[in-house]
Amino acid sequence: MNKNFVDLIIKKRDKNVLSTEEINYFVECLTDDNFPDYQISAMLMAMFLNGVSEKETSDLTMAMANSGKVLNLSEIEGIKADKHSTGGVADTTTLILAPLTASCGLPVVKMSGRGLGHTGGTIDKLESIPGFNAEISNKEAMKLVKNNGIVIMGQTENLAPADKRLYAIRDVTGTVESMPLIASSIMSKKIAAGCDALVLDVKCGNGAFMKDYESAKKLAETMVAIGRNVNKKVIALITDMNQPLGKNIGNSFEVIEAIEVLKGNLKGRLKEVSIELGSYMLVLGGICETKKEASDMLEENINNGKGIEKFRQLIALQSGNPEITENYSLLPKAKRKEVLRAWNSGYIYSMNTYDIGRASLETGAGRRRKTDKIDYGAGIVLKHSLGDKITEGEIIAEIYGETEERCNNALKILASSIFVSDKPPAETKTIIKVIGG
Amino acid sequence: MNKNFVDLIIKKRDKNVLSTEEINYFVECLTDDNFPDYQISAMLMAMFLNGVSEKETSDLTMAMANSGKVLNLSEIEGIKADKHSTGGVADTTTLILAPLTASCGLPVVKMSGRGLGHTGGTIDKLESIPGFNAEISNKEAMKLVKNNGIVIMGQTENLAPADKRLYAIRDVTGTVESMPLIASSIMSKKIAAGCDALVLDVKCGNGAFMKDYESAKKLAETMVAIGRNVNKKVIALITDMNQPLGKNIGNSFEVIEAIEVLKGNLKGRLKEVSIELGSYMLVLGGICETKKEASDMLEENINNGKGIEKFRQLIALQSGNPEITENYSLLPKAKRKEVLRAWNSGYIYSMNTYDIGRASLETGAGRRRKTDKIDYGAGIVLKHSLGDKITEGEIIAEIYGETEERCNNALKILASSIFVSDKPPAETKTIIKVIGG
Repeated sequence: MNKNFVDLIIKKRDKNVLSTEEINYFVECLTDDNFPDYQISAMLMAMFLNGVSEKETSDLTMAMANSGKVLNLSEIEGIKADKHSTGGVADTTTLILAPLTASCGLPVVKMSGRGLGHTGGTIDKLESIPGFNAEISNKEAMKLVKNNGIVIMGQTENLAPADKRLYAIRDVTGTVESMPLIASSIMSKKIAAGCDALVLDVKCGNGAFMKDYESAKKLAETMVAIGRNVNKKVIALITDMNQPLGKNIGNSFEVIEAIEVLKGNLKGRLKEVSIELGSYMLVLGGICETKKEASDMLEENINNGKGIEKFRQLIALQSGNPEITENYSLLPKAKRKEVLRAWNSGYIYSMNTYDIGRASLETGAGRRRKTDKIDYGAGIVLKHSLGDKITEGEIIAEIYGETEERCNNALKILASSIFVSDKPPAETKTIIKVIGG
Repeated sequence: MNKNFVDLIIKKRDKNVLSTEEINYFVECLTDDNFPDYQISAMLMAMFLNGVSEKETSDLTMAMANSGKVLNLSEIEGIKADKHSTGGVADTTTLILAPLTASCGLPVVKMSGRGLGHTGGTIDKLESIPGFNAEISNKEAMKLVKNNGIVIMGQTENLAPADKRLYAIRDVTGTVESMPLIASSIMSKKIAAGCDALVLDVKCGNGAFMKDYESAKKLAETMVAIGRNVNKKVIALITDMNQPLGKNIGNSFEVIEAIEVLKGNLKGRLKEVSIELGSYMLVLGGICETKKEASDMLEENINNGKGIEKFRQLIALQSGNPEITENYSLLPKAKRKEVLRAWNSGYIYSMNTYDIGRASLETGAGRRRKTDKIDYGAGIVLKHSLGDKITEGEIIAEIYGETEERCNNALKILASSIFVSDKPPAETKTIIKVIGG
């Protein structure tokens, strides 16, 4: 194979397909700090414009997964089924799913990120629980999962470093929105995190990275194809993100909503998606034969308290205070509260979900920059969903923030993100499509 | 205008046309040393693959021309007509044209490069003349051209610096072979060098950058279009480079061949192209009304000795020894000489001109790296042209080099670059096409 990178760029520029060896060399260069960014960005633009074949995408995924430390879960018995969401507002499914599927016997080794956004990532949410520790070594993690069947830990620094560099370059060179590049980025990290099977939640709508159904479907199909090519069982759900999934947005608020679902106190979209994702995890994980059997088991473990008990054990074994599940006042809560009231009567017709996320960021619940400090007790609690009938003056949402300024800034954005009409909106499905199932 | 470079990349990535302001901003970034190469290379690949419109190409040319110091020739009377060749083997036209057109009254301010290749550039060739000085300030240059009508000087450091950076990045990112990028690179430097009109010699064939007629034509048309858009009179000739233009390759050898043409001792392809280019220069420069009138004047100034006299004056005024025109032994000549003899009888059927250039490089006549020292007295003297009938054992070429190794290396390459057949090749035209004339 030719190890001249310019020749590799020219090959892709001229619409040829790169071999496995050539993709491996590309990823090798990505992990060489002395290798220049400008050659990588030229290659990325050529990939963006000329496309990346299914084979190339799978090769890229595996090479990036293997570019750093790969979590070896072979000493844990059973099929390790993981879950990934492309991200949305009030998406608290992991906090529900992880303990609930673990309570059904699925071994759960969940590696999760912090990242930027309108709220923190799963790890940030858990860290809103006093004492909770996600900075766990791989060795400790193995011990926890063997004893308790579950561990949720922060991403190790060295997880798919090639993907990290590639993403950083894509971000500043106009090469983000490429399906194969997005898909391989997601899949490489999940594979490096050691999973055997994967259930994907591809969000679709005005609060999601994929705004329209066709893009979401394409991304889902691309990831399912990668799975097929690299011998990982992958199922992708396309779910609606034209309104927040749950009603609580913000770290400690989302912990509370997850607990409420686990206790069986809460039905609705968040629970529906959680049960659907969890069912596929149990089936892929070999715990259940059919989806029906799996969803019954999940419902049962909500009703018999095994799910919430597993969550309490998880918290306790990772140095957190499990009492928070019974006493929410032990969780942080921002000092100030504002309310958004309905300015007229009618139906909640639509929401600009992305802007609701922006409002949450204004409260202090998320990060703009990596170095920003999250306010765990800040956030938004919605009182209604799309289609709800409301009366003028009624409270639509509560806003929590440390300062008046933060609350007001969030309120302004929130007020212009919710649209009321005298007609109800058309009914929409929460789970739009299942691919690879 | 949006001054976010990523948005600019995305605009081009999505096949939109950049405005004049946006192209200007791009070039502004090129001259900012702190601006990252990786964004420029992403833009270049998007330009390469999605194309650059005629308007964008002209805007890019002018912005790059104006990115550094632009030579102001307005104090010199008359139309300043320059000439540029895309480069070939034994292309000694500038050494002939500059004094010959100057002897006809055309003001000649020739800025020329050193560069890399099988021989040096025009400046290197002139520097093989003992004492010759091309490191001349703009002020001195103005004085010389006012008094003597001609100056040939090295390129100032600050000539089109944006082009310099762009080319350096293109070279290592697989984005060299783009017609609009090649055309704007050439034209920006010529415009920065202050010309009003330009005659282009686009070489075409196995010794040229443009191997085939279609590419050469496209490049010529692109440059003529730039001229039209930026109000410079531009004519492009497509000329044959399937054999060296002259018979001497190497710095002092090419000076000798130029002198021989100026003295009227030598006819053939080199003279033909020189007269053609020179005629268009005189017409564009307003010295003659018709091409016929112009070529007659050039022939006359060869016959009456005015051309060679102007060359002697040029040499003398730039500190060189003009006696070299009468005594070639004053020019450097390498110690060793080898000859290539015909291995059988027949016709010279074809030449691999690029490899003949490589053989010249092996003698020491050119540079591989910027820092290489040129051997002015090294080179190759061909004894025949395409179609010549030769007899076994006859000398086809002489090779000059400082060491036996250099001569032998050159001989090996040269021997496999010339093909003899028992049939003569088809006749070909030296001047293939005139565009914009």
